[in-house]
Amino acid sequence: MNAPSVTTRDPRSVGAAKAQNAHFDAPLKLKGGATLPSYDIAYETYGQLNAAKSNAVLVCHALNASHHVAGYYADDPQNIGWWDNLVGPGKALDTNRFFVIGTNYIGSCFGSTGPASINPATGKPWGADFPVVTVEDWVEAQRRLADKLGIERFAGVIGGSLGAMQALQWSLSYPDRIRHSIVIAAAPKLTPQNIAFNEVARQAIMTDPDFHGGHYYEKGVVPTRGLRIARMIGHITYISGEAMAEKFGRALRRGQPGFDFDVDFEVESYLRYQGDKFSSYFDANTYLRITKALDYFDPAADFGGNLSAALARAKAAFLVVSFKSDWRFTPARSREMVRALLDNQRIVSYLEIDAPGGHDAFLLEDPRYHKALAAYFGNIEL
Amino acid sequence: MNAPSVTTRDPRSVGAAKAQNAHFDAPLKLKGGATLPSYDIAYETYGQLNAAKSNAVLVCHALNASHHVAGYYADDPQNIGWWDNLVGPGKALDTNRFFVIGTNYIGSCFGSTGPASINPATGKPWGADFPVVTVEDWVEAQRRLADKLGIERFAGVIGGSLGAMQALQWSLSYPDRIRHSIVIAAAPKLTPQNIAFNEVARQAIMTDPDFHGGHYYEKGVVPTRGLRIARMIGHITYISGEAMAEKFGRALRRGQPGFDFDVDFEVESYLRYQGDKFSSYFDANTYLRITKALDYFDPAADFGGNLSAALARAKAAFLVVSFKSDWRFTPARSREMVRALLDNQRIVSYLEIDAPGGHDAFLLEDPRYHKALAAYFGNIEL
Repeated sequence: MNAPSVTTRDPRSVGAAKAQNAHFDAPLKLKGGATLPSYDIAYETYGQLNAAKSNAVLVCHALNASHHVAGYYADDPQNIGWWDNLVGPGKALDTNRFFVIGTNYIGSCFGSTGPASINPATGKPWGADFPVVTVEDWVEAQRRLADKLGIERFAGVIGGSLGAMQALQWSLSYPDRIRHSIVIAAAPKLTPQNIAFNEVARQAIMTDPDFHGGHYYEKGVVPTRGLRIARMIGHITYISGEAMAEKFGRALRRGQPGFDFDVDFEVESYLRYQGDKFSSYFDANTYLRITKALDYFDPAADFGGNLSAALARAKAAFLVVSFKSDWRFTPARSREMVRALLDNQRIVSYLEIDAPGGHDAFLLEDPRYHKALAAYFGNIEL
Repeated sequence: MNAPSVTTRDPRSVGAAKAQNAHFDAPLKLKGGATLPSYDIAYETYGQLNAAKSNAVLVCHALNASHHVAGYYADDPQNIGWWDNLVGPGKALDTNRFFVIGTNYIGSCFGSTGPASINPATGKPWGADFPVVTVEDWVEAQRRLADKLGIERFAGVIGGSLGAMQALQWSLSYPDRIRHSIVIAAAPKLTPQNIAFNEVARQAIMTDPDFHGGHYYEKGVVPTRGLRIARMIGHITYISGEAMAEKFGRALRRGQPGFDFDVDFEVESYLRYQGDKFSSYFDANTYLRITKALDYFDPAADFGGNLSAALARAKAAFLVVSFKSDWRFTPARSREMVRALLDNQRIVSYLEIDAPGGHDAFLLEDPRYHKALAAYFGNIEL
């Protein structure tokens, strides 16, 4: 999942964003049984909360993004928010109408408390001791942030991929505190193939000699090799085979085969670049935990696999969006959610977009997609 | 790609097989420009060559198999040939009628000259200095084996996946020396996505600290970690998502989530097992070269991408087989070959089988598949 690269200033930008930090002293009991004694959540806001506090929209991020959803940083103007094409004054999620909150989940390496944070019990980084967190835990942590910001009920919670799982979970954990759940490029649970890809990525990281069982911070090294492979694997699943063919074909970097193991095909160069870049900034312990959160997400599990029963407690209205070229979470997976919601007489809009970008299409600016989101948000009463 | 596991003795087995070795002193000039000064080819034969020498069928293997196609070894009775379900007396490729030759390609780690062999120039293992070999090179080496065995013209050349590419290449390199080309679960060239998976596997191997630039033999180590990851990635592409779901679902090894990084889902256990097993016997330098041979295969490249033009020189009759659940080389890729052959008025039979096994279905004993092969071979006049 790539943040869009924006080089010219967007006149509809939210402008300079400011990362904020909310500290929570109350311990957070996690689904896995562990307790976080205290934690921070990094977040950003765009637009103004109205007097009725009825216009707040929470944006949840996916695997490698953060609370930096829109705008740029004054001291780092090239650092554009990952959903800047969607969020801003006059954009589909219009910050002239909505108070938009970007939040970073616990376990991340971008500001919220995570494995690289200091464990108060030891005074050293948590490392391998940082607990495995779940989508449910994230929603619980976000609920406390909502309390702190004085938001009793969100106009909407929106996300793509893993972010969409949070948007769905909000409707289940706190049915009365969310009016609209916008679930994009998601699935109600991972397939064994999805899990398999995650597991290979985890194995690449955990078998990297620089991983040191997760306690690499204190060794002054980073399992770069493993992270690089993990990212390359992930990347293949984020874009469609068609998009790869369109973008790279079988073009050769050196014009002809090298009969060696340097870069031959352009797609190899692209993957190496993506892997190198990712491994230079992302934390391996975070990667492990995020993929586990994905694997574990399965709201139907407590209902004998019956998704309709699982979603019965949701009260929100839903917009579900899928992309035909997404082979990671195919449209069929979105339709499962739509059917289960309809079984419960929920209000559901479903949009299946014939976009070529694969799973990452949720980050791209397809006019059909963005116009539909603009219309949906435009119809939300404040 | 898994060799079938056979625990009871098959009454239609070819019986005890004997690996043989053919040595070639004449240098082999390779497509990439390098020259192998001499080389060995490991092979096995089943059945009898008839007096007219018209009943020989060459079986070419895919990524991790060998010349041990059928039967077992007297001193290792559990070591059953990888296509034993197909080749034997009374089986689809009937050794009562045909003289079947299983051949191991150059660069392999199973008997033919490869990276672990001694480089005559140095007296040490070739290692990283072993050249990159191509499908065309393999066919050339096999042609010399055919000469040595006195086979002027094969009744057929058959293979699945990478083996099928060799069967196709035979019809192009030596149109007059092959009567039937049986091309199963193949593609006329890899897609960028196929190449991407290969590249991640290569990167996992080459960045393993135990790889030592390919000269690990002399260090007394093996890049096990990288091979393990490579195999896990490959394995995901060999079986269909549906077959994975059918086989494993989301079953949990420990009955409930562990909230740790031990095995949670059964599919993880399966992948780790496959990776561990493979890395215990397969050579990393071989793996690198095989994936390159796959990436480079593209008979249309010299014809401006025009596959019909590329296949114009083929004279053989063809049987092309694909499997609907094969997402590595989809049926659409087989149909490309069929169309190109029909453009050239070749005799082509095409079979698309609705088998659930994915790419590995070519190794499995689907009755529709095996009956079709039996019928095809039965119609070959000797």
